[in-house]
Amino acid sequence: MRVGSLTECTIAVIGLGLMGASLGSALCGKCRRVVGVDQSGYAVETAMKRGFVDVATTCLEAGIQDADVLILATPVRKILGLIDTISLIAPEGSMVMDLGSTKTQITAKMENLPRGVQAVGGHPMCGREKSGVDAADAGLYHKSLFFLTPLKRTSEEALSMACALVQSVEARPYIIEAERHDRLVAAVSHLPYLLACGLVRIANEVAYDDTFIWQAASSGFRDTSRLAACDVSMMMDILMTNREAILWMLEAYSQNLNDFARSLERRDEGSLRQLLIAVHERRRNMF
Amino acid sequence: MRVGSLTECTIAVIGLGLMGASLGSALCGKCRRVVGVDQSGYAVETAMKRGFVDVATTCLEAGIQDADVLILATPVRKILGLIDTISLIAPEGSMVMDLGSTKTQITAKMENLPRGVQAVGGHPMCGREKSGVDAADAGLYHKSLFFLTPLKRTSEEALSMACALVQSVEARPYIIEAERHDRLVAAVSHLPYLLACGLVRIANEVAYDDTFIWQAASSGFRDTSRLAACDVSMMMDILMTNREAILWMLEAYSQNLNDFARSLERRDEGSLRQLLIAVHERRRNMF
Repeated sequence: MRVGSLTECTIAVIGLGLMGASLGSALCGKCRRVVGVDQSGYAVETAMKRGFVDVATTCLEAGIQDADVLILATPVRKILGLIDTISLIAPEGSMVMDLGSTKTQITAKMENLPRGVQAVGGHPMCGREKSGVDAADAGLYHKSLFFLTPLKRTSEEALSMACALVQSVEARPYIIEAERHDRLVAAVSHLPYLLACGLVRIANEVAYDDTFIWQAASSGFRDTSRLAACDVSMMMDILMTNREAILWMLEAYSQNLNDFARSLERRDEGSLRQLLIAVHERRRNMF
Repeated sequence: MRVGSLTECTIAVIGLGLMGASLGSALCGKCRRVVGVDQSGYAVETAMKRGFVDVATTCLEAGIQDADVLILATPVRKILGLIDTISLIAPEGSMVMDLGSTKTQITAKMENLPRGVQAVGGHPMCGREKSGVDAADAGLYHKSLFFLTPLKRTSEEALSMACALVQSVEARPYIIEAERHDRLVAAVSHLPYLLACGLVRIANEVAYDDTFIWQAASSGFRDTSRLAACDVSMMMDILMTNREAILWMLEAYSQNLNDFARSLERRDEGSLRQLLIAVHERRRNMF
């Protein structure tokens, strides 16, 4: 890599949505310069006006030409396309990192980057239902878990730089294999999203007969369905690039619901209570 | 009924857990006297010490002897038992109301109360994961929806008294048939509970191979699984007394999840996106 420490780096953040603009904002002052890149003139202007980046442009080539670190902060399938584009124009000695929510396909694609360009996958476990540059917040990454998925070809120096970057925004790096990452987030994040969506859909079905359901929904429904308000385009990319793990979770989950239903049907209170007590204790110990 | 206005009433709250003690606390000063009744000496002492009631006792018979309104604030199946007991000792001219989370079985049972005792079902849509007298809070009912399910035999006077009581704790009364109530809460409350439990159970299964899942779970998992921390005994009563409606919801829900899975399997992005967009818009408009 061209530079050895974060403070010397010019960092290009490509994609000035919630994640990119928040990261840029948290990085400002901790490196030589933060350059924002986005196709949207509004995002570029807003990021500059609000000081989320030191400078910003709608031109990818101009934005990355002096970059030591390139951060791909778009939805997953946009990242897959960006890796191809960047292969041709990333500066020799630079490092590419991404913030995508699934890692297997992205790290596989990163293997194709030129030898002179380092690469490491990244996935911060933070977010909001709101998306876009207007929702950006320098504190978004504070105390968050931040997965890093190195490739076989990732140098120690590049991985150290990625860790330093994560720590500089007060997040906690955790190095993990891409496939293991994708299985874990399928369980703790992608499955919950689909569960929330299924719940809103059921309520919608009940509402055909009884619109009072929307008034009857209180805090329990609100929290259980919260993730259904996530950005659909972002979620579609996640679902389509983590299909196998998500399908596995959906299958196992349906089996669990089926167990609940069979116990209820049979009025088998003993086994139902035992299940729910185990779950209750586990949940109490979690948060 | 013996008295015509709430301010003249002696109100006995039977069951000094979260719901009963919070209601007692909110009613103090708005009626002649609030008498708390609980089998637990600790609950009785705590409710008195913290001023949740004017007076309290572990003796049901003594507690209700001067009561104009009796509020049954225990888990559902305990309420079913209490209705039998109270049939024999409720003062002539008094009114019985309950706070149980399911209404069909309770209102059916209330039909057996003596003719000289009025009855109306009640269900406030508020709560906490924490239960017990220590979690009580006079503001718990503030702005909450409060279902009232009158019986055919409920007099207008008794229903007015129930409405006045609900409004005096700043909740919003909504009069509804017991069966319609049970179907609505199966969708917005009992199904979400089981979904949360199923999610924690899946995470537990993944944890056999990979305990890091507990660190990976962030705010999305936390909110979607929150209801799994609800009191199991209370929930068992709810599940067993609203079985048919809950089984219907579980079946419809499983079908929804199956639709998601089939779309994912077939890589049918169009129909999946359409589903998720409809859900997203609905959820955005809700809260």
